[in-house]
Amino acid sequence: MNYRIVLRTLGILLLCEAAAMLPSLVTAIYYRGNDIGAFAVTILLLLLFGVSMVKVKPKVKEIYARDGFAIVGIGWILISVFGAMPFYFSGAIPTVIDSFFESVSGFTTTGATILKQVEDLPRGILFWRSFTHWIGGMGVLVLTLAILPSVGARTLHIMKAESPGPAPGKLVPRIGQTAKILYAIYSLMTIVLAILLLLAGMPLYDSLIHAFGTAGTGGFSIKNTSIGAYNNIYIDVIITIFMLMSGVNFSVYYFIFKGSLKAALKNGELLLYLGIAAVSTVFIAINIHGSMFDSVGQSLRHAAFQVSSILTTTGYSTTDFNQWPELSKMILLVLMFIGGCAGSTAGGIKNIRLLILGKTIKREMVRIVHPKAVYTIKVDGKVVDEETVSGVMTFYFAFMAIFTVSLILVSIDGKDMVTTISSVATCIGNVGPGLGMVGPLGSFADYSVFSKIVLSFCMIVGRLEIFPVLLLLMPHFWKKVSI
Amino acid sequence: MNYRIVLRTLGILLLCEAAAMLPSLVTAIYYRGNDIGAFAVTILLLLLFGVSMVKVKPKVKEIYARDGFAIVGIGWILISVFGAMPFYFSGAIPTVIDSFFESVSGFTTTGATILKQVEDLPRGILFWRSFTHWIGGMGVLVLTLAILPSVGARTLHIMKAESPGPAPGKLVPRIGQTAKILYAIYSLMTIVLAILLLLAGMPLYDSLIHAFGTAGTGGFSIKNTSIGAYNNIYIDVIITIFMLMSGVNFSVYYFIFKGSLKAALKNGELLLYLGIAAVSTVFIAINIHGSMFDSVGQSLRHAAFQVSSILTTTGYSTTDFNQWPELSKMILLVLMFIGGCAGSTAGGIKNIRLLILGKTIKREMVRIVHPKAVYTIKVDGKVVDEETVSGVMTFYFAFMAIFTVSLILVSIDGKDMVTTISSVATCIGNVGPGLGMVGPLGSFADYSVFSKIVLSFCMIVGRLEIFPVLLLLMPHFWKKVSI
Repeated sequence: MNYRIVLRTLGILLLCEAAAMLPSLVTAIYYRGNDIGAFAVTILLLLLFGVSMVKVKPKVKEIYARDGFAIVGIGWILISVFGAMPFYFSGAIPTVIDSFFESVSGFTTTGATILKQVEDLPRGILFWRSFTHWIGGMGVLVLTLAILPSVGARTLHIMKAESPGPAPGKLVPRIGQTAKILYAIYSLMTIVLAILLLLAGMPLYDSLIHAFGTAGTGGFSIKNTSIGAYNNIYIDVIITIFMLMSGVNFSVYYFIFKGSLKAALKNGELLLYLGIAAVSTVFIAINIHGSMFDSVGQSLRHAAFQVSSILTTTGYSTTDFNQWPELSKMILLVLMFIGGCAGSTAGGIKNIRLLILGKTIKREMVRIVHPKAVYTIKVDGKVVDEETVSGVMTFYFAFMAIFTVSLILVSIDGKDMVTTISSVATCIGNVGPGLGMVGPLGSFADYSVFSKIVLSFCMIVGRLEIFPVLLLLMPHFWKKVSI
Repeated sequence: MNYRIVLRTLGILLLCEAAAMLPSLVTAIYYRGNDIGAFAVTILLLLLFGVSMVKVKPKVKEIYARDGFAIVGIGWILISVFGAMPFYFSGAIPTVIDSFFESVSGFTTTGATILKQVEDLPRGILFWRSFTHWIGGMGVLVLTLAILPSVGARTLHIMKAESPGPAPGKLVPRIGQTAKILYAIYSLMTIVLAILLLLAGMPLYDSLIHAFGTAGTGGFSIKNTSIGAYNNIYIDVIITIFMLMSGVNFSVYYFIFKGSLKAALKNGELLLYLGIAAVSTVFIAINIHGSMFDSVGQSLRHAAFQVSSILTTTGYSTTDFNQWPELSKMILLVLMFIGGCAGSTAGGIKNIRLLILGKTIKREMVRIVHPKAVYTIKVDGKVVDEETVSGVMTFYFAFMAIFTVSLILVSIDGKDMVTTISSVATCIGNVGPGLGMVGPLGSFADYSVFSKIVLSFCMIVGRLEIFPVLLLLMPHFWKKVSI
């Protein structure tokens, strides 16, 4: 391990976080809230640590895979710890563990909250809470790469470790350039969304907050009843569409922008993703029509919003879906696992993995009947190499294994089974709300400190797609010699 | 597809089922029940169909993989249909779908029941119900192979398709001989168990019934409160041990019998299996001590029994574990997925697969850090070939995918989520009881016909380890040309 370059890069990261906190400080000052001091102190601490860490001069400037994973794994824990400070220092969240949970939930774009009442919180704090979604959505380290001149040649490792999906591609040869393009698309989408929400009748502050939460597929709201509080069909439709858009691989937009619409739409993952969204919406709309809503339009509106929200792992709600019939709830629970597309801001297992996994079933059946047949798995006409296929299958098992172990650990708390299962699912999938006690109108407040730690771990594991976190836990990883 | 050999082999299978029904007919006659006619008619039908199918003379005598899978897949559906007839004809179970469900549950050694009251049923019917466990445990087709002279040279395909585990081994070069050895061990174990139960104070009839259910890891009882009805610590301990023994790969006993104890015990799967059983027992005993039972002994007794029962996918109970605290219930739910060892009579995913899957996680981490490293997966010192590893990973995904789709289909019924999840888990894992409405004192009676069909499908899919059933559903499979 090249500790020096790890330290230095983490230092840069903390400086970026300090910069990212400035808009929240400005907001706090604008609203003359009691949270100004909390932001000022945190920014000072970030600068102090950041500057002293950046001073470390690495002997070797190359970032190898191992260093990249260490940077991403430790980096996310660090920014969450510092990100929690404003909550705690301002008194908005009284305990350390709750502040940490909320910060992790923000950066990982989960949106699970320990707050029972959000509406009374200072404006700066609420801004920061939602802004963490926006930063975390595209990736804090991708942001670092986009802003700064390259800290080393092999920064692809960092992007690989932080970006969702089995094989993140470079849009253009240079990583820094790719990161810039991604952030440009992301920023544009966020601005357009904020303007549309404003036009639909949402106040400016609320529009920004919900634009961050939507583009980042986060889900923190500033209303106790989430988007339902506005009760405005235009807002519902706009957010439904933008959530879905945020769950799409951003390279699709790049290709559309470049004029190659065909290349953008000839995308098996995108079709699977939209197909799942459409089918789920129809099933739920039929299921809630009559029992929950009288008109077909209302049923479709709420079904589409909730499917889009859960599938993209955003977590906003327009109504208390915890009261919906069992079929609808079960579909939503399943969608929590599926998630969005690779290379989007969404969490979950991702559609591309399910596409590949589905094809392995077909391959296995062919193998059984024709043991000697050679069968390669293709996606969009291209052969997926065996290492990637095996990596996807391993990812799936690791995801389910961590889910299962976490289920048992959280069960110690003694909450009812539906609450426990949906809590772990919603956290590891980076969704936000679950069912039962943690439904859209509930919160994670009543969990024990131990459960909150386990669930925070699940959120980070889900956001970083398991292996960067698992590697940190392996003693071998820290040794100088190879594993 | 060689339809002629498939038909002929299925004919032999039906004749075997007719023979297997004779002890139940004898029991019915002995107790002078009103079920004599039902057995007589069913046996006649089996003979009629069996004899006419056996008359088909195949042109080619070789059984290829495709034929083998067709025989196993169709065979299990056929024997379940005929096996349901005594229930229906005798009036013991009034509807066709319930009779079929109970028959499938018997042969697949699930033990999930649609009966709310079992104690009033005719003795012959109860005998048949439990005897299906015994036949299904080791495999009806393995039985066919053991009894009859080889129907063709390549019968390994049949055994492969019907035996649990990723790579069933032959104990001795000849398949028929292997099948005979397996049935000999199995029969011996059943007889010893029946004698021990008799000595512990159980009536002879009850001892036989519970020996069938234990050795086959089935779980049908003739008491409404299952083994708890006897309230006898000796019986509890004996059944706990024999359930665990039935979940062990039977080749272990063969090696012990051959004197190579070391070879038998140097078995990673066995250690994992026993480790999971021990750890789960301790956790549950601590969890139920105080809240459910006052003494440590009682807590251990019931924890060990229930863990052994669920892990081996038997499904007996000594107490209503549906009332246990959440942690204990969650552990039991997880155990339903794990199941026993390959080559045993137990269901579930199987420990050997989890062992291999666990090693793929380690391999993936090594690959991330050292992309060029070559890493083979070893179990018990032997390299597992990549096709098997990939097959195991695919199996896991296919298992979870069928579980997930079934969850949604059964949710249409509108039962509470815990009932739905545990129903599907217990059926696909071939366990028997679940939680909520389908707890140890509940039944599957209140499910709709559609749900009962889905759950029957899950039981067969779980017992045959997915692919033989999936193949039947593929149109390609039936074509003359290759897939």
